Amino acid sequence: MAGAGRIWTAALIVIGDEILSGRTHDKNIAQVASWLQVQGIRLSEVRVVPDVIERIAEAVNALRTSYDYLFTTGGIGPTHDDISVDGVAHALGVPVVIDPRAREILEAYYVTKGGMNEARLRMARVPEGADLIENRMSGAPGIRIGNIHMMAGVPAIAAQMLDALTGTLEGGAPLLSETVGGWIQESQVADLLSEVEKAHEGCQIGSYPFFREGKTGANFVIRSTDRDALDSCVDTLCEGLGERGFDWTPGGI
Amino acid sequence: MAGAGRIWTAALIVIGDEILSGRTHDKNIAQVASWLQVQGIRLSEVRVVPDVIERIAEAVNALRTSYDYLFTTGGIGPTHDDISVDGVAHALGVPVVIDPRAREILEAYYVTKGGMNEARLRMARVPEGADLIENRMSGAPGIRIGNIHMMAGVPAIAAQMLDALTGTLEGGAPLLSETVGGWIQESQVADLLSEVEKAHEGCQIGSYPFFREGKTGANFVIRSTDRDALDSCVDTLCEGLGERGFDWTPGGI
Repeated sequence: MAGAGRIWTAALIVIGDEILSGRTHDKNIAQVASWLQVQGIRLSEVRVVPDVIERIAEAVNALRTSYDYLFTTGGIGPTHDDISVDGVAHALGVPVVIDPRAREILEAYYVTKGGMNEARLRMARVPEGADLIENRMSGAPGIRIGNIHMMAGVPAIAAQMLDALTGTLEGGAPLLSETVGGWIQESQVADLLSEVEKAHEGCQIGSYPFFREGKTGANFVIRSTDRDALDSCVDTLCEGLGERGFDWTPGGI
Repeated sequence: MAGAGRIWTAALIVIGDEILSGRTHDKNIAQVASWLQVQGIRLSEVRVVPDVIERIAEAVNALRTSYDYLFTTGGIGPTHDDISVDGVAHALGVPVVIDPRAREILEAYYVTKGGMNEARLRMARVPEGADLIENRMSGAPGIRIGNIHMMAGVPAIAAQMLDALTGTLEGGAPLLSETVGGWIQESQVADLLSEVEKAHEGCQIGSYPFFREGKTGANFVIRSTDRDALDSCVDTLCEGLGERGFDWTPGGI
């Protein structure tokens, strides 16, 4: 990409039978993706895997070496189906240990909530050699080991953990984007989109059709790490849409 | 799983930069997962990949041989970034051809909408040897080739295509589930959940904590393909919760 320098990449593993059964609608993919954009890191692949240690380990090993960063969500709670720590430890070939800092955090958190028990102590388990990610919301910390960042599955808690990580990961120039929308069938302007994209190096144009109020429309999202290239690409696209007699709305509709 | 017979499995590839950028919140994972449950097919893995032919092909080849069925969503529209057909054809080592049935459908659909053009004709492209999946909503069909089912990314259109596929795929006994919820911290009953699951072969218990109205609660989801085993497991769990003094709500809270 022109003038963008190194591109930093990340993958995300969403761990949990509840996503694969359709019971729970995942909210972490979009949340992690948006957060990564701001850090200048590109989310390049997501896998959703079941609560099975070997399947988690397999995904971890496939992705941790292919991308700069790996994130996981889910499976770090106190119950028997929370086995993400075991999956990551298995992938890395390290034992699972009780982290004394995590134990201390949990003991303090539960002091007014019935105290520690065996299940709560499970949330102090980490792959040996790990650091912790702060969780201001519910005590139990996230886990950072190598380039792997393990976060809670509950989106509000995952958000807190992302917040704690903000600014701690090296990234590149953030991917900027502008949206232009209109009551346009994308098949009426497909050639234009392709021509404009080709004419602007380092810019990608995505076309996202929708049906709303009984009408067909589309939003065109232009992305680049270079502000000038992006603006120029948006201008050319809008000019082209205007020449063809289409109304367009900055920011999308 | 006791008495369940063969387990049929599926994987899903969600194709699209818009999901990986966080711009669009995926709705197809939950939709496909829920539909598969009813068909007696278990969604076992999901991958989200960018609009890059090689990346799509790589995921297709990794998943189509590992599971009974493979589904894809996204990237079958008229614009330059719609390259899922190319990705699947690349994976299968077959050429991309214009399907005459698809062309006919599109010509009929666009007859009152400005007629065919080059972009619209793109939606008649299929990997050679494919069948079509009906799309009552917007003309352009889905594509079925071998065990691969390619659907639109727009959730309402994907839903129509799933509807057209209903009853056409061989599956096993559907996975049944019951939910019990309570204002219970899961760490207070983790040992109970684990014991009850172990005592009921063929049942899995998932624990899904939440924070709501300033309080901590959890829903416990019991899953089995065997109705009797499921009911017995639910009864034992509820009895155990009652013995510990917890109120629980059938169906979850």
